[in-house]
Amino acid sequence: MNVIKFIMKTVSDIGERDLIKLASSIYKKYNDSVDLNDDCAIIPMGDNYFLASSDMISEKTHIPRKMSPWQIGWFIIAINLSDIAAKGGIPLGVLLSVGLPRTYPESSFIELLNGASSCATAFNTTIIGGDTKEHETVVLTGTAMGKIKKNLFMSRKGAKTDDVVAVTGSLGKAAAGFYTLEHEQRTETVNRLSEPTPRVFEGMALAETTKVHCCMDISDGLSSSLYQLSELNRVGFEIKQNLLPISPELESYSERDSNSDILQLALHFGGDYELLLTTSKEDIPILRKSLKQFDTNLSVIGKVTKEQKIQLITDQKKIHLPNQGYEHFTIKKS
Amino acid sequence: MNVIKFIMKTVSDIGERDLIKLASSIYKKYNDSVDLNDDCAIIPMGDNYFLASSDMISEKTHIPRKMSPWQIGWFIIAINLSDIAAKGGIPLGVLLSVGLPRTYPESSFIELLNGASSCATAFNTTIIGGDTKEHETVVLTGTAMGKIKKNLFMSRKGAKTDDVVAVTGSLGKAAAGFYTLEHEQRTETVNRLSEPTPRVFEGMALAETTKVHCCMDISDGLSSSLYQLSELNRVGFEIKQNLLPISPELESYSERDSNSDILQLALHFGGDYELLLTTSKEDIPILRKSLKQFDTNLSVIGKVTKEQKIQLITDQKKIHLPNQGYEHFTIKKS
Repeated sequence: MNVIKFIMKTVSDIGERDLIKLASSIYKKYNDSVDLNDDCAIIPMGDNYFLASSDMISEKTHIPRKMSPWQIGWFIIAINLSDIAAKGGIPLGVLLSVGLPRTYPESSFIELLNGASSCATAFNTTIIGGDTKEHETVVLTGTAMGKIKKNLFMSRKGAKTDDVVAVTGSLGKAAAGFYTLEHEQRTETVNRLSEPTPRVFEGMALAETTKVHCCMDISDGLSSSLYQLSELNRVGFEIKQNLLPISPELESYSERDSNSDILQLALHFGGDYELLLTTSKEDIPILRKSLKQFDTNLSVIGKVTKEQKIQLITDQKKIHLPNQGYEHFTIKKS
Repeated sequence: MNVIKFIMKTVSDIGERDLIKLASSIYKKYNDSVDLNDDCAIIPMGDNYFLASSDMISEKTHIPRKMSPWQIGWFIIAINLSDIAAKGGIPLGVLLSVGLPRTYPESSFIELLNGASSCATAFNTTIIGGDTKEHETVVLTGTAMGKIKKNLFMSRKGAKTDDVVAVTGSLGKAAAGFYTLEHEQRTETVNRLSEPTPRVFEGMALAETTKVHCCMDISDGLSSSLYQLSELNRVGFEIKQNLLPISPELESYSERDSNSDILQLALHFGGDYELLLTTSKEDIPILRKSLKQFDTNLSVIGKVTKEQKIQLITDQKKIHLPNQGYEHFTIKKS
């Protein structure tokens, strides 16, 4: 039997992103038009696209131990709305399926659903359905739905050589929150991790400009997102280290912990739910103007290159930027 | 600590259906129009309703041990499509989120997704997205989406006193499959449980007649479904035992096992994914005609009563029909 054990490939040998590619290839056999390269499914409806996206999180692998039920509720809705935001979509409703152990307290269930509802409400939408089932541990699946006019839709494809690359908000908020939480502290910084703000309103405003060439959220980390855009668009990126908008939370966290490497966390940690986009250099002011009403920054961090390499420019040196974003099933990289 | 343990209410003290009511009351605080009485969420889009429904299943609590990965894939898609079918909806796509342990074989993953895709294809739709995540045990969430013209939509509400009650197909196929599977057999009967046929095409045809007053699937069992319709419509039901369309599989299974009670299984077991509806007596021929193309029977099994009681008429006697359908979190009734 040991032989079988050794020759049988398991999902951990493949890794999450290759599993998604495998899933995509299977689905394509049945319908050639399916494209799983995007976190968001698209259904044409007249002049609009109907958008739908599902994300699953589970207690042991995705939810930091110390997150409160309210925060878990907020979190599952926020990460689903982020996929709608990246398309520029107007949210239409969210389904929330909750798997719970028999011993789960009623009070925590109420708190979790209040957190979920609060997040939906904060982004002008509502939870309109779902499922509640018995399960060994806590597992949650959200499905966010939205719509967008076809001519405003922001795709992951469309990056052009010499586009500038820009990111909303700042990098490393979630990383700072994660490590603060690990040290048993409950602060505003922790909430950056546990109660992320999906860029729903910003996404809608950016889409209205029709100037965005491609867009995605950086939930898996900046480096991982750049690699995904690179592969899809067959382009490369040059990212300038001194242009990265490091979050004040990360700066001040690392002041207290000399071991933490700000740059590595900002590039690779993930969980920030900012929007990463490319556009023509001359259109940056138009995009910034569209975000002014939300007090949200848009930082140019580099440019698109013809050569399919991802490089970090640091003190006049160009160095290879590795893909170290978080990936499930595989061993977490340091 | 024991005191806390005893006074802290858990989800198992509440039961699945009351948890859904609790969830509904929480969501309503944020948006008054939310109605979780239906397994299917509804979003108005011009002349249409956009329909979306999520169902979650997990290895230990919902998936019989001996189901193959292909069948598990078929099953999760089928049960989600059934919620669209009960509205008369045209399927537009399905999202499939899969949580898997690290040791899950790649070959089983491929088989599972082929089963899921085969089911979607069988009902003229396709898997257009989802998520793949690491989890302790196998957990699957499907989200089926569909649309229906507003004037054709079949609601769970609308039963009228003196309506007839009718059900598609037959009762007890899944029960027969379940017990056959328990006895280590793999037969066509087992497939009735593991590869259910959602009444997607039948639902669309029934909706086109505009003669259905209310409709739902009987996934939780006939008795449970009657109780749900009774509560929603504030009506009662008289069901005639001799009119129940017992499935040939259940008849022949029980011939081999004298302990099994055909009637109890047909009334309470669940898993059949047939459609239960009420309509005017004179419209039954129109509904039957609409189903003829699929070779699907529609059996009248009783009538709607003003008095909110659910009774079984058996050999000139009227007896109380208890609600013994399957409910998660609570102890399973015998």
